Amino acid sequence: MVVKVYGPFYASPKRVLVCLVEKEIEFETSPIDLFKGEHKSPEFLKLQPFGQVPVIQDGDYTLYESRAIIRYYAEKYKSQGTDLLGKTIEERGLVEQWLEVEASNYHPPLDNLVMHILFASALGFPSDPKIIQESEEKLGKVLDIYEERLSKSKYLAGDFFSLADLSHLPFTHYLANSMGKEYMIRDRKHVSAWWDDISSRPSWKKVLQFGAPF
Amino acid sequence: MVVKVYGPFYASPKRVLVCLVEKEIEFETSPIDLFKGEHKSPEFLKLQPFGQVPVIQDGDYTLYESRAIIRYYAEKYKSQGTDLLGKTIEERGLVEQWLEVEASNYHPPLDNLVMHILFASALGFPSDPKIIQESEEKLGKVLDIYEERLSKSKYLAGDFFSLADLSHLPFTHYLANSMGKEYMIRDRKHVSAWWDDISSRPSWKKVLQFGAPF
Repeated sequence: MVVKVYGPFYASPKRVLVCLVEKEIEFETSPIDLFKGEHKSPEFLKLQPFGQVPVIQDGDYTLYESRAIIRYYAEKYKSQGTDLLGKTIEERGLVEQWLEVEASNYHPPLDNLVMHILFASALGFPSDPKIIQESEEKLGKVLDIYEERLSKSKYLAGDFFSLADLSHLPFTHYLANSMGKEYMIRDRKHVSAWWDDISSRPSWKKVLQFGAPF
Repeated sequence: MVVKVYGPFYASPKRVLVCLVEKEIEFETSPIDLFKGEHKSPEFLKLQPFGQVPVIQDGDYTLYESRAIIRYYAEKYKSQGTDLLGKTIEERGLVEQWLEVEASNYHPPLDNLVMHILFASALGFPSDPKIIQESEEKLGKVLDIYEERLSKSKYLAGDFFSLADLSHLPFTHYLANSMGKEYMIRDRKHVSAWWDDISSRPSWKKVLQFGAPF
């Protein structure tokens, strides 16, 4: 069964794509144009009632929320491709902890930066310098904690690459490239080495070929 | 080994407590006074570098982020107490999906309401009517989708109580009680029945005995 992934052009679906590549799972993609509002079409809302990408279809199984989908495939194919959940239940606990840190602490200020620096004019809302400044300050504090953590272990959950690291790839790619904020990574030695490591994985390079709006 | 849970007085740690009760796991609690800033003390930051509750200590294992901790115990003690992850890997996928919906779609506007209606004056920041209005609108749209979902299955991930429902308890308790917004639940028939069901579980009634600021 080939997994169908909706919205490969955008960042959150790329979490799913890079996971599928790491797990050596065959997939196909179906484009969704957010700029044309296709994620709010009645047809798409039947798949994803909140009108967000990604969604996957795998036979008659439909699943949404990128971090739920990557957990599902990492567990379903635990012994195929890269193990992304750790070897023990305690290691998986730490993977879950850092996945939650990514979702709750790291992503919100970074998402604000991405929206207000890159997407504002294309989506037709005003870029707010105050939000940009506050978000950069918040993200900087989070990155300071990452710097401390990554001085003690090679990856976030320990000395093994996991879903916790993988989940950072798509939005940090914006931070390190088109946003003009690469210094936030480069000013922090261990974060910088970690970013070079995870972003040079063949899986991520393959996923970048799907393109991006910015 | 008795699990130690920091911060039982507050909402996020109650996610952990209600999970431990459902799983019949022995625990003790350690108070943290957020109003005195104890979560920002050097001692606490050694346990939780972001300065947030909850944290658990279980022997020499330390874990933070409430939704990571509940996943860890639900999996570690899968066959003890209430099964909170579903019977199959596909059911667990749906549990993960609705856990993510709770964290990403439901919680942020509800947290804004809780902070601006209940906590603002105690924490010394001005309550913002615009944020309250926008957050109520956002949460209402999310609850409309819940209403549709809960018209088709008894609980969020299917016809079984899971971490996805459990994760909603602590903050929805504010919505249904001290915030004066109970109508947001009562105006939606299936959400209302779901709330009555999950909030009347003995585990939740036991956890309420730990008290709350509001």
